Order: sequence, then C-alpha cells, then structure tokens
Amino acid sequence: SRSINLAVIPGDGIGQEVVAEGLKVLSAVLPQDVKLETKDYDFGARRYHATGETLTDADLDALKQHDAILLGAIGDPSVPSGVLERGFLLKLRFAFDHHVNLRPSKLLPGVATPLAGQPEIDFVVVREGTEGPYTGNGGTIRKGTEHEVATEVSVNTAFGVERVVRDAFARAQARPRKKLTLVHKNNVLTFAGHLWTNIFTKVAAEYPDVTTDYIHVDAATIYLVTDPGRFDVIVTDNLFGDIITDLAAAVSGGIGVAASGNINPSRDFPSMFEPVHGSAPDIAGQGKADPTATVLSVALLLRHLGHDAEAARIEDAVSADLAERGGLPARSTSEIGDALAARVAG
Amino acid sequence: SRSINLAVIPGDGIGQEVVAEGLKVLSAVLPQDVKLETKDYDFGARRYHATGETLTDADLDALKQHDAILLGAIGDPSVPSGVLERGFLLKLRFAFDHHVNLRPSKLLPGVATPLAGQPEIDFVVVREGTEGPYTGNGGTIRKGTEHEVATEVSVNTAFGVERVVRDAFARAQARPRKKLTLVHKNNVLTFAGHLWTNIFTKVAAEYPDVTTDYIHVDAATIYLVTDPGRFDVIVTDNLFGDIITDLAAAVSGGIGVAASGNINPSRDFPSMFEPVHGSAPDIAGQGKADPTATVLSVALLLRHLGHDAEAARIEDAVSADLAERGGLPARSTSEIGDALAARVAG
Ligand SMILES: CC(C)[C@H](C(=O)O)[C@@H](O)C(=O)O
Ligand SMILES: CC(C)[C@H](C(=O)O)[C@@H](O)C(=O)O
Repeated sequence: SRSINLAVIPGDGIGQEVVAEGLKVLSAVLPQDVKLETKDYDFGARRYHATGETLTDADLDALKQHDAILLGAIGDPSVPSGVLERGFLLKLRFAFDHHVNLRPSKLLPGVATPLAGQPEIDFVVVREGTEGPYTGNGGTIRKGTEHEVATEVSVNTAFGVERVVRDAFARAQARPRKKLTLVHKNNVLTFAGHLWTNIFTKVAAEYPDVTTDYIHVDAATIYLVTDPGRFDVIVTDNLFGDIITDLAAAVSGGIGVAASGNINPSRDFPSMFEPVHGSAPDIAGQGKADPTATVLSVALLLRHLGHDAEAARIEDAVSADLAERGGLPARSTSEIGDALAARVAG
Repeated sequence: SRSINLAVIPGDGIGQEVVAEGLKVLSAVLPQDVKLETKDYDFGARRYHATGETLTDADLDALKQHDAILLGAIGDPSVPSGVLERGFLLKLRFAFDHHVNLRPSKLLPGVATPLAGQPEIDFVVVREGTEGPYTGNGGTIRKGTEHEVATEVSVNTAFGVERVVRDAFARAQARPRKKLTLVHKNNVLTFAGHLWTNIFTKVAAEYPDVTTDYIHVDAATIYLVTDPGRFDVIVTDNLFGDIITDLAAAVSGGIGVAASGNINPSRDFPSMFEPVHGSAPDIAGQGKADPTATVLSVALLLRHLGHDAEAARIEDAVSADLAERGGLPARSTSEIGDALAARVAG
C-alpha cells in the first residue's frame, strides 16, 4: 500500500533511543510517494507508576487502527517482575494473536561471535507466540506456606500448532536450502510432543521439496554452538523458542543485532516488530545503545507490509555498515542510525 | 563404608563400552580393603523388544538393595520416542526420588571448546529432578483430530523446591567462590517463578556468606556462551536444567566429558550416576566412544558414597590425561580407560 500508519511504542530504557534511529532509517528508505504516519504511545514503566495501567482495552482499540507497531523495549527494574511482561508484552501478543514470532539469525560480515572459527550462520526461528507455557494457565495453592503448590500449564492445540508449522514450511520452501527443523522435547513432554510431531509430519507430506528433521531442545543448544550452520528454518514451541532465540542471537553477533517480529499473518490485527534485546536500563540515556536490531526489525516490518525492496535495502545497508565497522571503535546510537539512513537513502 | 555394592546398567548403544571403562577405573582406584561387588542389569531397548518391559516393580526392588547405580546410556531409535525415557529413565528418577540432578561443568586443560578464547569454566548445575514439567502431568483430548488439545503441567511444590535449593546453597557454600545463581523464567511463568524466587530468597537469608543472583533462562544461555566464568553454582528447574546443562556440556568440552549424578541425598534409595551423553547408536560397538564422562560419573558416585580421596584421584587423573592428550590423535575407548586406570592405580 502507498501509506503506512505506524504505532510507535518507544517504551523503557534504551527503547526511546533505538526507536528514534529505526524511524530515521524508515523515513530515509521509503519512496516519496509512500506516506508515513506515526503515532507515539506511552507504555511501560512510567505509565504504570503514574496510572497503574499497563495496556487497557482502549489502548488495544487505538493500536488496532494501525498497519503495524514498532516497539523499542518494555521493562524496568522498578516494576515487579512479570507485571509489564504479562500485563503489556504478552497481553498484546495474545490480544492481537501474534502467533508467528519470527527471529532471524544471521552472522553478518565483520561481526564478532563468541564461537571460535567464525562459522557461517543464517537461519530463522519461527517461534509459536500464543500457546505453550505462555498462556498464563496454572496457579498457586497454599501460597507462602510450606505446602504451596504452583503449576504452569502448557496448552497446545492442533489449530495453534498447525498454523505456525504451516507458516514455517512456507518460509522454509522460500529459502534456497529448503530445510526445516522441529525443535521440541517429545521424549519427555509426550502429550505436547506427539501433537507437534504428528502435525509436523502431516504438513511435511505437502512439502516434499522441504527437507525436515527433528531435534530435542537440549540437543539443539549443543548444535547452536557446535554447528549452527546446520540450521535453515526452525519451528518450535513458545518457551523453547524464547530460550533458543536468545542463544541464537548470542552466537550470531549478540542481541545488539537481533530483530524480531510478532506476526499475525492474517492481517486482522497489526503485527508488532521489536529488537530482541530489552530496555538495558544500565546504559539508557547515554547514546550508547546499538540501534541495529531495531533497524533490522523495521526491515521485517516493511517486508510484512509488502515493501520487500525497501526491506532488502535496509538489510543490505546494515551488512555493508557492519562490514565497514568491523574492528572500528564503537559509535553512538545516532551515528549508527545516521550512517544507515544515509546508506538506504543513497 | 568398606564395601560398595553397585548396580550396573550398561544399557544401549555405547553404554556397554563406556561402563566397562568406568568399572575398570573404579576397580583400579579403590583401596584393597574396599570390597567392590557389582551386579549387571539388562535394561533398555533389547529387553523392551524381548519382553515389552522397561522397569518393573521387581526391578526397582532389586535395584534398591544396592549402594548406588552406574548407568551407561538408555535409548535406541528402534523404540518409539518417550517409551524408554518415561518408562525407564524418568521412572527410576521418580521411584528413587532423585531430586538433585548434579551436573558439573569444568573446562579441563587441553580440552577444546567451541567458544573463542578458551574462557575459564568451572561451575555446577543443581537441576531439580522430580518436579516441573517432567512429572508426566497433562494429557490429550480429541487426539488426532483438528480439535486436539495437549497439555503439559509443570508441578512445583514448596517441599520439592526448598530441598533442592537448600542442597544448592550447601554446595555453593562449600566452594571457594560461594556464589549461587537461580535460573528460571519468573517474568512469564509467574506462579512457579514466584515460588522458586521466594524460597530462594528465604533460604539465602540463612547463607549470608553465599552471594546470590537471578537470571532468566533465556539470558542464561547468552551468558553460557559469552561469559561462562560468571557462574559458580546454578540451581534451576527440571526442564531449564535439562536445556542449560546440555549447553554447558557443549561449551565446556562436549558431552564426551560431561558427568552427572541423579542423587537422593537422604540415602533412602541408591543414587544413580551416568554420563550426560546418550547411547550414540551411530558409533556403538566400534570402540570409539569416549568413556571420560562415565569415568567422571564414577568420581561423583564415589564422592556421594564418602570416598572423597578416590573421587579426587579420578578427577586428577582425567585432568592430567586430557592435558597430555590435547592435540594428540583420538584414542579408543579402552585405551582411554586403560590410561586412566593406570593413573589412578599409580
Ligand atoms: C520479556 C518476555 C515476556 C519475552 C518472552 O519471554 O517472550 C522476551 O524474553 C522475549 O523473548 O521476547
Ligand atoms: C533422556 C531424557 C529423559 C533426559 C532428560 O531430559 O532429563 C536427558 O535429556 C538428560 O538430560 O538426562
């Protein structure tokens, strides 16, 4: 479409800083005739302390009017653990049914990895976003006593698993290597494991050109450090995806460059794009945060909205920038943003 | 005690080979006056195919008579996923209440790590072994239909969490750095997360000399590859422990050298010691498997039974052997066992 109506949620900590650069690059990359409208929303710790609110029904109604959402980071040590996570981040994912959590991992030229020998890394994790142990099912009895019992229920439905598995097969088919790996723990979590495995096998039959395999989540962490090149597309459960994508980010250049999309492919609701990193309060306000992950999240956003050429321009600019930067002294948040904006405008 | 009555479960694949070397080293290290009795048990794929049995009540009664159990590996591709895991490995852990799953990670001299720069690594994971999502709670409705729902319930009790947290504090206090890290996901799994966090905080007050911190499981995987030296003792849930200990093994030399104990500190039941690796059917019967992880598991076994000096002799022998071996061509399973046996007998 020839206009983008974007909700912008800078959020907490470094969120403000990195989002500013993301928007700078977005403005620079868009052709003249694509009209960009943005509206800022104030969510996160400040609003929670001021009003006690995290995300109201009215907020959701307002956000729903947008084509997409760009988020910086939400979270602050002043807020009890879980309040903003469950009350904002997960509430938004569930309300807008963001069932495809897309997290690409690519080791870009010049970027350091903690792994010896600079292996080639280029894979995408498709993490389920609305089920598993993230549903908030469970509870506590006899709280605070020596007889307390706390449960967490992982909920897995054929509907929920099949749609994300299909999405992953389609993404695998569109890539040169056409390989899809299911990551689960089906030898222990046999109820959910069988559901995932059966649906994976069923859908695989429709994609004879996609090579498939299965790896337990514990073994997957081993491969991620010993042979990350073996992965092309991974599809996995919400919790396993959370864990392995942080590891994936770490081995492919760090969370400073890890982008993500919380996608509802149906377009019934706006999808949300954000860096994998958090609000990093320790370096907030110092112009030190690397905005690259946010800029790459903008590229995912553009691709989701059908602006593929612009998305590719951003990704190429980041590659070129990082290649040049390799070994150079660190630059400030806005220096990096400026450099990328200049490249994509070029 | 001056005698050890050991149940030996070679199991599947390379289990037989590595256990033989473990026993070789055990015999060599024990002083003349410690009587070692061993009894072999045939569990795993062969028995399952022959009889349909994995672990019967009679088996448990027999195993219960021993001071400890040494296991090689259980698991074979010919058996459907989950059957031996739930029917044997987990059944044994639950029946004998092996609630402390002890997994040390130490990067030994000369051992290659996939991490750049050979960082120092020396930590221990205390993984809860009898609760969490491993309980087998949950189920499936409308199986095989498009309306299937499969659940997995993570069960966490104050009793179960407190005993393993206490065990971890005691272990941390006994180490030079006296540092204990709780790994969980308390910002999302808030029911279980609060229970773990509250008990951890409560017990911490009794150990003022132990430094504590908390890390989300996803972030823990990042630290394990970027700064593994930050860890001393980690205490965590059953599933998180499963995942991070495979990663920990990978960064500290691979699962070829990763030992583990499934411990019931009460001694009401025999504890079980096993290498972290599996049955590796692809290399079974070729004399290629590295028995080091099994030998180090024997050291854990000896320490559990109070033979600390002998345990230390084995660990020192492994360090010396690996230091010497660094850069040398690979040796066969029995060559490694012979070398270690010779050293500890020394
Ligand atoms: C902050 C938290 C709710 C979130 C998650 O666990 O999904 C984060 O870790 C992530 O990966 O986006
Ligand atoms: C085989 C399986 C039951 C087991 C587990 O998940 O505990 C294994 O992965 C381990 O870590 O010992």
